[in-house]
Amino acid sequence: MPADPSTPNPQPDVRMRGFARRTTVAETWRWLDGQVGLLAAETVPLDSLAGRVLASDVVSQVDVPAFPRSMMDGYAVVASDTLGASAYNRLALRIVGEVLPGQPPRAGVKSGEAVRIMTGAPLPPGADAVLPVEKVEAVGEQVFAQDAVAAGKNVGVVGEDIPRGKRLLSAGRRLRPQDVGVLSSIGVAEAQVVRRPRVRIVVTGNELLPPGTPPRDFQIVDANSPMLTALIERDGGLPRNPGIIPDDPASILQAMQDDVDVVLVSGGSSVGKEDHAPVLLGQHGELAVHGIAMRPSSPTGLGKLDSRLVFLLPGNPVSCLCAYDFFAGRAIRAMGGQATGWPYRQATCRLRRKLVSTVGRLDYARVRLIDGEAEPLAISGASMLSSTTRADGFVVIDEDLEGYPDGSDVTVHLYDSPGEGPA
Amino acid sequence: MPADPSTPNPQPDVRMRGFARRTTVAETWRWLDGQVGLLAAETVPLDSLAGRVLASDVVSQVDVPAFPRSMMDGYAVVASDTLGASAYNRLALRIVGEVLPGQPPRAGVKSGEAVRIMTGAPLPPGADAVLPVEKVEAVGEQVFAQDAVAAGKNVGVVGEDIPRGKRLLSAGRRLRPQDVGVLSSIGVAEAQVVRRPRVRIVVTGNELLPPGTPPRDFQIVDANSPMLTALIERDGGLPRNPGIIPDDPASILQAMQDDVDVVLVSGGSSVGKEDHAPVLLGQHGELAVHGIAMRPSSPTGLGKLDSRLVFLLPGNPVSCLCAYDFFAGRAIRAMGGQATGWPYRQATCRLRRKLVSTVGRLDYARVRLIDGEAEPLAISGASMLSSTTRADGFVVIDEDLEGYPDGSDVTVHLYDSPGEGPA
Repeated sequence: MPADPSTPNPQPDVRMRGFARRTTVAETWRWLDGQVGLLAAETVPLDSLAGRVLASDVVSQVDVPAFPRSMMDGYAVVASDTLGASAYNRLALRIVGEVLPGQPPRAGVKSGEAVRIMTGAPLPPGADAVLPVEKVEAVGEQVFAQDAVAAGKNVGVVGEDIPRGKRLLSAGRRLRPQDVGVLSSIGVAEAQVVRRPRVRIVVTGNELLPPGTPPRDFQIVDANSPMLTALIERDGGLPRNPGIIPDDPASILQAMQDDVDVVLVSGGSSVGKEDHAPVLLGQHGELAVHGIAMRPSSPTGLGKLDSRLVFLLPGNPVSCLCAYDFFAGRAIRAMGGQATGWPYRQATCRLRRKLVSTVGRLDYARVRLIDGEAEPLAISGASMLSSTTRADGFVVIDEDLEGYPDGSDVTVHLYDSPGEGPA
Repeated sequence: MPADPSTPNPQPDVRMRGFARRTTVAETWRWLDGQVGLLAAETVPLDSLAGRVLASDVVSQVDVPAFPRSMMDGYAVVASDTLGASAYNRLALRIVGEVLPGQPPRAGVKSGEAVRIMTGAPLPPGADAVLPVEKVEAVGEQVFAQDAVAAGKNVGVVGEDIPRGKRLLSAGRRLRPQDVGVLSSIGVAEAQVVRRPRVRIVVTGNELLPPGTPPRDFQIVDANSPMLTALIERDGGLPRNPGIIPDDPASILQAMQDDVDVVLVSGGSSVGKEDHAPVLLGQHGELAVHGIAMRPSSPTGLGKLDSRLVFLLPGNPVSCLCAYDFFAGRAIRAMGGQATGWPYRQATCRLRRKLVSTVGRLDYARVRLIDGEAEPLAISGASMLSSTTRADGFVVIDEDLEGYPDGSDVTVHLYDSPGEGPA
């Protein structure tokens, strides 16, 4: 079994220092969750509110409906006129007008009269009920009631859907499509929502070519910044990535000092001579965690640079994905007011082969689903990004476990989106 | 129990015709699925590929890695030189150079020599293994091997991650963040993906004010077009909504003839005198389904106008949401190559109160979750959009059921997004 290239050196030489101590994932989360605060509010117009998180409660300034409205197509009547009406005792009313949705009622209704009314139209003055169209027979200027209606029947009262002054949606609510509809219905043009975290991607590595170019000579193409961009957008952040940063301390520091909320440094995160970012963070800010008891992603670092939260993600794309999902994504979602849980669907699946781990270390094991069962991918693919595209998801093996035996039920976090299940 | 205002009239009068027959949801899906085809491909640049659906297979034109590379930090050596090395039998090698990632190896390695090498750097000519840094002691110009390595050890061979000519991702794949990373790593600058469906929203109703304005007099604010816009975007479509259309046949027909793939008409979908859209669709195209055995949303219509798929959605916002989710969203997702299943997370919950339906009619019942159990919302809220913001999700009661008894386990479709669960 080839060793994981992200494993640091237990017996370092002059240029390669080891991690003195690995922080557990739980300890890292504890530090991280203590650092993360909700960002300030910003005002956003109605047509951009879907998926955003309310920064303050929304209280309706209006009644919905704002006027008594018909809940049926039929005839607005004085209810007492219909007393005793039945198919065998049809009572005649004179049709004195019609009221359509959106229009003011032109005629009132007096005893003995009826006004044609459509669903949603305002009830004319004098009427107190709507006789549904299937309970009448209309003949010329007359309508015959074939049933009685009680006062208030088939009438929507003012504020019945949403009363004025009601707290309709609370701060922290992630706005759904129908919420945006409701906000529109109460006349909202804009709302206060939590600002989206600005996230700077700092990709370093002299061996890297920019995305969109073919690999050549001994250089490889940056896979991490396109992946991170998509992950940040998924989590509600605003990615910023002006390009690959040269592997020198001054350039890296300058990039890390961008005007953002979160910095993701990809590459050069470990303890080697070329790993500038941890040293810079320690010198100019705080390197709170460096080296995490997990596989992959152990050379991950977390810290602060002034008000920025900084994540040092391994350059190995699999480790980069894993470290992003465990730490950076969690913080970005929390800062933007989104839920901090895994952004993946979960399924309980039977394990087709045992999964081996080590007590004291958390493992992120990619699996394929075969006939609804979880098949672990070969560990030799640990450094290969293609292993995360072959995988359908991953299993987390907590640090207090040695793994899972063949045949046990495990929770699989599925990479796909919720709509990808069967109809 | 107030009647559902979307229920058509069993005994129509001169201006209000009833539905001759209701089509079942299953029959409607059958017609719809027969109409929906995958849209054509379009070329999209790498940075816009996340979430898009591949229209053709992606075959790698390169090997990854393109050169033999070190999988560890350490020393590139001739493996046979290390034969017999151990902590008690340290074998000396002369350091003749260093190779960094991205750079061509300047020196070759001959027997008795070693070259410092970093993870990802190309293996120098002559070397056939990498001795990891923790298995050596470096002293000045010499390195002492303390372990033996076999030929090929710690070396990534050409094409090991992705071999040239390999089909990496198949047509139909919805691209994940890591897929975009893999595409970048093989030098892809753009890919062929399924075109996003263009969806025209046609909102009609003289009683409607545009979104973002306060309600006034007897007019109400359009809640459906902001909601539909968010739903269409969620499902991968491109919404187009130039504003509220006057309630006259010529204006509605012109709007329905927009250059799009799908038309959603909201309002005027039933059988009343003011319901122009079904008549227009029947005259100028095909009104395939009108009146569906479901509650709410029974006045929904489906048809075709030239190549456009047309959905006539009820104006009642709850019915509009339900009809969109049952029919229009399904079609939009299918045309764009997205999965056609419910775009909601599902949970099995105990029912706190019975849910009553009628055999022959499918019900869409909004529920709240209380302590993990499903509490049906009062049916009197059926016409109220606020009922869908109070609800946490919905239960579908199939047409062959009379409902579910109190205490039974039901599948709840949750309106929230997958990240909203606990961590």
